[in-house]
Amino acid sequence: MNNPLHGRQLAPDGPQLAAAYDAVRHQTRRLCTPLRAEDHVVQSAPETSPTKWHLAHTTWFFENFLLTPLLQGYRVFHPRFGFLFNSYYESVGEFFPRPQRGLLTRPTVEEIGEYRQYVDHHMRALLDQCDGVNGAEIGARTTLGLHHEQQHQELLLTDIKHLFACNPLKPAYRNPPATDATAAIPMQWLQLDAGMRELGHDGGGFGFDNETPRHRRYVDACSLGSRLVTNAEYLEFIDAGGYRQPTLWLSEGWRKANDAGWTAPLYWEDRDGEWWQMTLAGCRPVNPQEPVCHVSYYEADAFARWAGKRLPTEFEWEVAARDLAVQGNLLESGHLHPRSARAGESQFFGDVWEWTQSAYSPYPGYRPPEGALGEYNGKFMVSQLVLRGGSCVTPSSHIRASYRNFFYPQDRWQFMGIRLAQ
Amino acid sequence: MNNPLHGRQLAPDGPQLAAAYDAVRHQTRRLCTPLRAEDHVVQSAPETSPTKWHLAHTTWFFENFLLTPLLQGYRVFHPRFGFLFNSYYESVGEFFPRPQRGLLTRPTVEEIGEYRQYVDHHMRALLDQCDGVNGAEIGARTTLGLHHEQQHQELLLTDIKHLFACNPLKPAYRNPPATDATAAIPMQWLQLDAGMRELGHDGGGFGFDNETPRHRRYVDACSLGSRLVTNAEYLEFIDAGGYRQPTLWLSEGWRKANDAGWTAPLYWEDRDGEWWQMTLAGCRPVNPQEPVCHVSYYEADAFARWAGKRLPTEFEWEVAARDLAVQGNLLESGHLHPRSARAGESQFFGDVWEWTQSAYSPYPGYRPPEGALGEYNGKFMVSQLVLRGGSCVTPSSHIRASYRNFFYPQDRWQFMGIRLAQ
Amino acid sequence: MNNPLHGRQLAPDGPQLAAAYDAVRHQTRRLCTPLRAEDHVVQSAPETSPTKWHLAHTTWFFENFLLTPLLQGYRVFHPRFGFLFNSYYESVGEFFPRPQRGLLTRPTVEEIGEYRQYVDHHMRALLDQCDGVNGAEIGARTTLGLHHEQQHQELLLTDIKHLFACNPLKPAYRNPPATDATAAIPMQWLQLDAGMRELGHDGGGFGFDNETPRHRRYVDACSLGSRLVTNAEYLEFIDAGGYRQPTLWLSEGWRKANDAGWTAPLYWEDRDGEWWQMTLAGCRPVNPQEPVCHVSYYEADAFARWAGKRLPTEFEWEVAARDLAVQGNLLESGHLHPRSARAGESQFFGDVWEWTQSAYSPYPGYRPPEGALGEYNGKFMVSQLVLRGGSCVTPSSHIRASYRNFFYPQDRWQFMGIRLAQ
Amino acid sequence: MNNPLHGRQLAPDGPQLAAAYDAVRHQTRRLCTPLRAEDHVVQSAPETSPTKWHLAHTTWFFENFLLTPLLQGYRVFHPRFGFLFNSYYESVGEFFPRPQRGLLTRPTVEEIGEYRQYVDHHMRALLDQCDGVNGAEIGARTTLGLHHEQQHQELLLTDIKHLFACNPLKPAYRNPPATDATAAIPMQWLQLDAGMRELGHDGGGFGFDNETPRHRRYVDACSLGSRLVTNAEYLEFIDAGGYRQPTLWLSEGWRKANDAGWTAPLYWEDRDGEWWQMTLAGCRPVNPQEPVCHVSYYEADAFARWAGKRLPTEFEWEVAARDLAVQGNLLESGHLHPRSARAGESQFFGDVWEWTQSAYSPYPGYRPPEGALGEYNGKFMVSQLVLRGGSCVTPSSHIRASYRNFFYPQDRWQFMGIRLAQ
Repeated sequence: MNNPLHGRQLAPDGPQLAAAYDAVRHQTRRLCTPLRAEDHVVQSAPETSPTKWHLAHTTWFFENFLLTPLLQGYRVFHPRFGFLFNSYYESVGEFFPRPQRGLLTRPTVEEIGEYRQYVDHHMRALLDQCDGVNGAEIGARTTLGLHHEQQHQELLLTDIKHLFACNPLKPAYRNPPATDATAAIPMQWLQLDAGMRELGHDGGGFGFDNETPRHRRYVDACSLGSRLVTNAEYLEFIDAGGYRQPTLWLSEGWRKANDAGWTAPLYWEDRDGEWWQMTLAGCRPVNPQEPVCHVSYYEADAFARWAGKRLPTEFEWEVAARDLAVQGNLLESGHLHPRSARAGESQFFGDVWEWTQSAYSPYPGYRPPEGALGEYNGKFMVSQLVLRGGSCVTPSSHIRASYRNFFYPQDRWQFMGIRLAQ
Repeated sequence: MNNPLHGRQLAPDGPQLAAAYDAVRHQTRRLCTPLRAEDHVVQSAPETSPTKWHLAHTTWFFENFLLTPLLQGYRVFHPRFGFLFNSYYESVGEFFPRPQRGLLTRPTVEEIGEYRQYVDHHMRALLDQCDGVNGAEIGARTTLGLHHEQQHQELLLTDIKHLFACNPLKPAYRNPPATDATAAIPMQWLQLDAGMRELGHDGGGFGFDNETPRHRRYVDACSLGSRLVTNAEYLEFIDAGGYRQPTLWLSEGWRKANDAGWTAPLYWEDRDGEWWQMTLAGCRPVNPQEPVCHVSYYEADAFARWAGKRLPTEFEWEVAARDLAVQGNLLESGHLHPRSARAGESQFFGDVWEWTQSAYSPYPGYRPPEGALGEYNGKFMVSQLVLRGGSCVTPSSHIRASYRNFFYPQDRWQFMGIRLAQ
Repeated sequence: MNNPLHGRQLAPDGPQLAAAYDAVRHQTRRLCTPLRAEDHVVQSAPETSPTKWHLAHTTWFFENFLLTPLLQGYRVFHPRFGFLFNSYYESVGEFFPRPQRGLLTRPTVEEIGEYRQYVDHHMRALLDQCDGVNGAEIGARTTLGLHHEQQHQELLLTDIKHLFACNPLKPAYRNPPATDATAAIPMQWLQLDAGMRELGHDGGGFGFDNETPRHRRYVDACSLGSRLVTNAEYLEFIDAGGYRQPTLWLSEGWRKANDAGWTAPLYWEDRDGEWWQMTLAGCRPVNPQEPVCHVSYYEADAFARWAGKRLPTEFEWEVAARDLAVQGNLLESGHLHPRSARAGESQFFGDVWEWTQSAYSPYPGYRPPEGALGEYNGKFMVSQLVLRGGSCVTPSSHIRASYRNFFYPQDRWQFMGIRLAQ
Repeated sequence: MNNPLHGRQLAPDGPQLAAAYDAVRHQTRRLCTPLRAEDHVVQSAPETSPTKWHLAHTTWFFENFLLTPLLQGYRVFHPRFGFLFNSYYESVGEFFPRPQRGLLTRPTVEEIGEYRQYVDHHMRALLDQCDGVNGAEIGARTTLGLHHEQQHQELLLTDIKHLFACNPLKPAYRNPPATDATAAIPMQWLQLDAGMRELGHDGGGFGFDNETPRHRRYVDACSLGSRLVTNAEYLEFIDAGGYRQPTLWLSEGWRKANDAGWTAPLYWEDRDGEWWQMTLAGCRPVNPQEPVCHVSYYEADAFARWAGKRLPTEFEWEVAARDLAVQGNLLESGHLHPRSARAGESQFFGDVWEWTQSAYSPYPGYRPPEGALGEYNGKFMVSQLVLRGGSCVTPSSHIRASYRNFFYPQDRWQFMGIRLAQ
């Protein structure tokens, strides 16, 4: 089988991998601690999933791609879970329609917990065999499964935020943090020279197939903003009538904004002339110093045009970021919300995913892995745009400069924001 | 205030009413015993509601129409619950959109339980004042609230059935009953003479406003089937190609059946050539002796045309039923499913609601009550059809011969079936 | 074959029928005189049809139900016209989907004209045989075909009005009439006694199957308005906030009015504070003295509730109208628009179809004719409401007191208005 | 004003431009010769336009961008035509909603003809001033207007084809051609070396803004098919179950194909086991030697994956085509349908637009022109894909190697086909 994991240098010994497995799996459960059973069930939009589904689907991934094929004598936990918790792997068989995931009140949260324990138990047995004949394959697939679960950790939080925002009671997932009055640093421009570049995953550590192959690309000279666009800057756009001026918008974006009645980012509401926004700590006034968040590509693009700038390409972004350390306001910081840029921070990693103007397309020479795992990334390579850099709910061990996230231009429920280019 | 309760003869003493209050409220909670927290949350169709919502809305009814106006010093349990749990009373204020009821994971089931206890506690205090100056009003509104809650007991069960039927695991609400091999009695025809009739609620006991006023109506001679149409009879219609023969159908029904792909009643599925149906005891083979159930008006009408008969009018039905005792397979029987007609049973009450060909219109001289309680029945008097007789999930103290239930012709998720006329 | 024509007393001699045939067919063509070829093609809403389609469908009716079965040696004009111009007769075979009628640029208007001439030519030959063995059948079906064509004459005009109203140029179908400043007569109340009545078609002259059988019905005492509701009266309702007051509306109507953004009758527009309305003579200021027109059932019902009245039942209406002469502002008057009530006019016939609160249901003992012609009226007997009396575009020889027209409660594009009852 | 026309070398003398003007305008009218008045009116899909609208919109372009601003004393032909026939220029003012273009039966075809004559008359007067102070601007805008009109000549034909295909009579726009039995030449592979390229419009002759600026780009080595994919090759894909195999498809494409029920290219129908296709000469059997046509991007991509190949990028395509002469089966050939590849033909120009895997994005350093003409191309740069090479209905003077056409991945009604790469 062709291998979906490129250039990773996994420790060959089982214990290290088992520790990683335990850590990631434990982290997922920990994220559910503030939730009640009721919160696990509901799907508040077709593009979101219930918490319970995230818990089960990530578990099914290990069961289906590791335990069933590679652990001798393994018996699946439940014969219908494959149907219920397969996300979209056509080659694995039929699956339950995505928009109906919120109808499944059974299995209960408790039963899903038992499923996780059952699979964890057997995964530990499998990882003990990591030095055996299938050791490399076990290692590779387990590593993929853990990165897959980290993706769902992020989605679990963005989906809960969406659900709680639909509730007039505006429940909080976490306690409100202390007020942060730090002013964002002034915007400057980072100059990039023109030149031929080697881009894509360099083979060190884990990477997804869509970051490969590493390839040559000519990148023109440009400048990128030294930090993210702030709420204060975005409010200027709003106050200048940005949402009412069609010539600032892509044609498709103008139509969408009008059909949906957009007048501000997602989760903003006007309370007697003051903008408030829903956060994972409940509803609170918009802090002008923080990066603007929950904007669509259309809004990011219109803002950039209004500002006389543009959005970067994903290649410009990667050139600018690839020599930086992966640090910033990521999941581990515990803020769960973007934060104003401090002195010395460029915000390339964490805070918000940054829209690029690059369509999500295959790199030259790209080939998806063979088999079901090949359905992972390639089949989405149309109509979406690349975002870079991770957000305040991305695990830090999950992000890197070559990482390509992708969403539709109208999507807003992820932590998505704006870096300018010119 | 004009009074929505007509002709009821409530015991004027508080204790009897308080006992009725406790019994009905307790029954609602008892119906939830088989459910897990997760089951209370989800709305599986726009016309259904989550269990939790039924629990809270019926409670809000007492809080809003009794405690707030009539119990001195009463403080509402939560300031936003009025917004969340008002169903459709425009005159009471804004309310949460019906199709989004399933998004409310909070308040939790436990919190709704506390809400119910809080309201029950204060209702007992209010009922102690039943002999006071507002005694008649308290009695009337409490009685209305209890009948309202009984309606929601039925809906709670039909909505849970719909939810569970959406789940590929086909969970059971109750344990499967012993197999019932009793053959339905043969169909005979009950003759009704033509004549001038007094129809509508006669003023004895409780009645809804839409059953009034009692009025004169000329009813032609006709015959009604002596029992409900069975699955066996309906299977003949299916096997004869009834679902593929447009001339049997109302034009609108033919379009609906085709758009929705109907080939059998709701909840039926073809398993390798055998028809199974979802029940509150899980999925099981269709029993040909039982009354057919979960058919739309369009299907009932097409079946009748195929059989060379027609559906009765609501007036014919009432003439036939009004001298019968209210007994049959109702909620208290515990079957929660229609049952084959035994010797001596005419099935006018219980088993399934019976579609009539009568549009749901006001009786001559009908006036809705004044005030918010007047929004109860009258504002739905267009585009729906009357059903009569109650079903296997209707509380027996809730049904009577003059009772007018109403649904849209395409509705199928209630326990709805067919009695023929000619 | 059972006969769809009840009680008509057609002159048995062919010549008289042939003259009627020529007159009706000629009238249809005459109505198209003001139209350009382009105007004949377009379908501006799913419920309307292109002029060309009306011209061809009425012709197909004669071809399919008379020439093909009854004229020896007849060859159809075009083998595909049956498919294209069958409206909804399932028993005749497949037909072209209604919402796509506007896609048929071919056959051209000229070709449809040739089709009409071809069929007219053969119909004259058939009518010459009216005294033969099939004479009665030919007479009956021809009479039905002519009434059918008169229905389409009315639809042709209402559909053209809808089309022209969609055009920002607001083209006029006819020349603007002289201003009519006649004030409507004051409203009075016509008293009807309670009593047992014989209702439905009495067997004299032509009637549709849905007017039969004549049957006994008890009608309570009531009063009906002595004329139609005027624009002036309806403007009071608008100015009093009628469109913003939910308790005035049926629940379904309130939702529809809000979803569709209704703030006035169809074809009304606010030009700098003055109401204008589209008419067949172009756009012009609303004349307060004229009957209000192009309102839905929901609006008619809400207006009546606001006025402290109600809409009549179709039975009350028939009792009041059946002894009146059929005269009024009908198609032949040439106004093509409702007109203010003159002294002595009760407006029961003509001006606007009058919404009743009666659902369109079968009369007791109703049976549709056998065969394809039986698909004429019965299969629409659900979800619609009865309107009575004809409009300013109804041919006078087409209307009578027992005539039952029927539309959906949200329909507004016919000439529909309001008579009050109490 | 910034100028939307890049690098064109227009003859500075008016007469030459006037001749071009006359030729293009005359060609548009000539294309309408086979059409009847009725054919000009209807819009058969939201993305198509009525012929009449194309005739008027292209005329409005000259009126609005040339005559009104640049011809002294010019009076617009009709005050509302700006509203009716502006396509999407937000900066010019409000415009009539695109999906309703087919409702405008007025102005008639004849009146549109008068509009064209009126504008032509004044354009000739303006072009006489081409050597004056605004000469360069007049020349530039006129040239743009002519290329704009040529785009609409192509759309006029593809839209008429769509309209006629909706008609069960399958009318022909032109006479059927003689049968072409020529076999397509065998497929070979054209090798392209890797290297740094200068791509985009080179400044010679007319080009659209979206072809600029010319810029450097590194293009990897690849091979392109020596001719287009044929119907025979595509039939193999169909027969191999290509439309039923999800792993061949992009996820979005699989959903679309299933929702829409695609089993073959647009305009194909299975007549008793034989594939027929609608053409501008009516319906006829699919010729296996001709290039496959009317496929979406999803189908082109799935076919390529099935064949073990891929689609080219627009850059690979441009490198391969830029040194070829612009010749092939274009509008002037009169075939109006793709033709089998003859010896020596590579089919880069004409026959069908070729899907590339390149998203339609701005070139590095792209800036749209200022003013309303800047709304021409840039505002569509999201969610669409680039197609290259022109089709059998593209005027030959309109196409070139750097030309970037763009459509949504689900679009099929243009003449769109497949060239493979590897």
